[in-house]
Amino acid sequence: MITVDQIIHARWVITVEPDVPILPAHSIGITGGRIVAIVPTADWTLHVEADQEIDCRQHAVLPGFINTHAHAAMSLFRGMADDLPLMQWLEQKIWPAEARWVEAGFVRDGTRLAAYEMLRGGTTCFNDMYMFPDEAAAAATEIGIRAMVGMLVIGFPTAWAQDTREYLRKGQAVHDRYREHPFIHTAFAPHAPYTVDEGTLTTVAMLAEELDVPVHMHVHETAVEVANALQASGMRPLARLEQLGLLSPRLLAVHMTQLTPEEITHVARAGVSIAHCPESNLKLGSGIMPLTALLAAGANCALGTDGSASNNDLDMLSEMRCAALLAKGVSGDASVVPAATALQMATLNGARALGLEQEIGSIKVGKQADLIAIDFRDIRLSPVYDPVAQIVYAAHRDNVKEVWVAGRRVVQDGEVTQVDARQLLITATRWGELIRGWNPTY
Amino acid sequence: MITVDQIIHARWVITVEPDVPILPAHSIGITGGRIVAIVPTADWTLHVEADQEIDCRQHAVLPGFINTHAHAAMSLFRGMADDLPLMQWLEQKIWPAEARWVEAGFVRDGTRLAAYEMLRGGTTCFNDMYMFPDEAAAAATEIGIRAMVGMLVIGFPTAWAQDTREYLRKGQAVHDRYREHPFIHTAFAPHAPYTVDEGTLTTVAMLAEELDVPVHMHVHETAVEVANALQASGMRPLARLEQLGLLSPRLLAVHMTQLTPEEITHVARAGVSIAHCPESNLKLGSGIMPLTALLAAGANCALGTDGSASNNDLDMLSEMRCAALLAKGVSGDASVVPAATALQMATLNGARALGLEQEIGSIKVGKQADLIAIDFRDIRLSPVYDPVAQIVYAAHRDNVKEVWVAGRRVVQDGEVTQVDARQLLITATRWGELIRGWNPTY
Repeated sequence: MITVDQIIHARWVITVEPDVPILPAHSIGITGGRIVAIVPTADWTLHVEADQEIDCRQHAVLPGFINTHAHAAMSLFRGMADDLPLMQWLEQKIWPAEARWVEAGFVRDGTRLAAYEMLRGGTTCFNDMYMFPDEAAAAATEIGIRAMVGMLVIGFPTAWAQDTREYLRKGQAVHDRYREHPFIHTAFAPHAPYTVDEGTLTTVAMLAEELDVPVHMHVHETAVEVANALQASGMRPLARLEQLGLLSPRLLAVHMTQLTPEEITHVARAGVSIAHCPESNLKLGSGIMPLTALLAAGANCALGTDGSASNNDLDMLSEMRCAALLAKGVSGDASVVPAATALQMATLNGARALGLEQEIGSIKVGKQADLIAIDFRDIRLSPVYDPVAQIVYAAHRDNVKEVWVAGRRVVQDGEVTQVDARQLLITATRWGELIRGWNPTY
Repeated sequence: MITVDQIIHARWVITVEPDVPILPAHSIGITGGRIVAIVPTADWTLHVEADQEIDCRQHAVLPGFINTHAHAAMSLFRGMADDLPLMQWLEQKIWPAEARWVEAGFVRDGTRLAAYEMLRGGTTCFNDMYMFPDEAAAAATEIGIRAMVGMLVIGFPTAWAQDTREYLRKGQAVHDRYREHPFIHTAFAPHAPYTVDEGTLTTVAMLAEELDVPVHMHVHETAVEVANALQASGMRPLARLEQLGLLSPRLLAVHMTQLTPEEITHVARAGVSIAHCPESNLKLGSGIMPLTALLAAGANCALGTDGSASNNDLDMLSEMRCAALLAKGVSGDASVVPAATALQMATLNGARALGLEQEIGSIKVGKQADLIAIDFRDIRLSPVYDPVAQIVYAAHRDNVKEVWVAGRRVVQDGEVTQVDARQLLITATRWGELIRGWNPTY
């Protein structure tokens, strides 16, 4: 008999642990932010004594989604520049707006907006790359979402830092500050092979070993990127990264739409993780990542939404569904990337990609209680033949009704508990007015 | 000065009429189920006297979505057979389940379920193909959604009819019964070129002229279908349909994933409409319709969800978004199928495809008041740079808060008014239990 802080009674517990079936009518005990028991609801009182009982007996309870690639603060730019190809989107719209508007307050407000949206849709952890990671961390802490904030490095000055040395210095200060934090983590975030010089990338590789953190980078996002690199250096970016010692299990390569069969084998063998962002890749016309081949090669493929300026939401349910459907569509084989695989990409594979698989990504005794509950009392989820398929192919973000991060209930009956939603809406609207006031073509 | 039954004040009226810009702060007057006035809200009282005022001043008001291809009753099979290729899905799962379970009550209940979901997500009209179209029409009438029910013809017996003559006879009885109905319409629905014989298809072509209704048919859904036809007859199905006199503006060809450049030009010139079902095509691995080329050729491309057993929802917002993203992704050009085009496909093009463009599909004085209102008081839709892009790329089904069909308010503040939702949920659950009781592998 153990005593727990909370016990959640679920219609189904979907652990996402390999070889564990769906557990019908099970209960999850939580103490000190961690999962301490998973027992049949029928006889839970024989095993557990609980301070608080939570009734999710109409819900599927599963691990929270892990969004492995976001630019959270860009939620303030959502819908600002649609239907444009990547370089035009960046050069004519996003970079000028960033140069004018991005400062500490922008990042704090934008990340709040994003954190609200992510929690509301069942994302309990996001991996962020943006300026002012200190502000992103502060917003995430305030709202109670787990975040891995990026120690951004990019080869041009921004409001956050003037040169690569300053980026590295300020990034490490953020790392030091949050080293012991229960739900704020850090990673190096060199923007891309084409925006960071080789010397700095070598330093990043070294420092990442030293601090034992991942390296989060856009890699092979478009054919143009690869062609430019070939022309400039005679090497494809992945080959250059290998030379610099970056192809390792520490690397989380984002996008990866342009890959030869040899590169697929190679990154899988090197243990590189991949953040697949199918909606962003489609919307920007960047290309289609060869997910089926990467999975077949044994690569760890996770999912990311990318920023709201290129997606235009931060919805992991929709990203999961898109990944599964797209893989089936381009391969012409409806059996590839079945629902369970898509769900694993959005959870356990994401944890692995962030080096956090001992802590999060599945429901297992000892792991952090980063959990979500999807309410099945919805005509649009009825009848139920297979709860996992129903979640991946039919559930929408508003079906997520309860969310816990490290045991704290941060969404309750569809309301984000740590946010004044009305105030957030006013703040977002004000930013939109400011930006359109500056340039009405936005 | 005119008197109207209702006036709706909108933050934006998005008419979807060609060359009409977004109308900010406009009001729509409705009388006798039709739109009779569109005026600036600032001085509406100068033009209109209204019995009822409806405040949608935080909403975008737009024409309801037109789902041009559904098998509504199959909502009862949602999630029954995922991750299987089309023929295996049909032959091992769907057809046996249909043979056992489909009867009048099944179709009535299944269509109720689908109608609820569609209205709730902003679909005001659906084009249906299934057995017991009389029951589908009854369910649609009861719930208040516009429907074009299919006079199904298929070359094998079902619970609805024993042979093609009986299918035609019973279909025409449904047509006769609803001929004068304000929101129930009919079309011929020969299942596919490979399931209906040539004599019957010739009869359908003739009768469709006589009754002045569309012909709704699956065409070139998969490469296997086309290859089989070539082998059997030496002709591709489209060529055979042309020989039989079916390639005309009356034809609504569904799926069309397999098209040569000549076929694209040809169907566009013939005035054939196309129901693009991107999510179903991806999910079943059927292929990817060449949307960009069809649009460039001038073909009328509309959108459909297909049935819930192959999608697995009836969500036109998600279908719109998928169509736009997929076209950009496969063409590598982010500028193709911009948000406004996707929205037109989901509304006005759909009306054209059903031969109802004089009645529905846009907001225009004289047309039926089939309208929806999307509430922008959502952090996930903020800030707003472009309301159309925000609707297509960021809005989700639960953002639809108000729906009118032929002037009747059938969704009010997110609740479907003509349905006992709890009872519907119980009914759906009971069907699921029956079906799993019959065969637990489902």
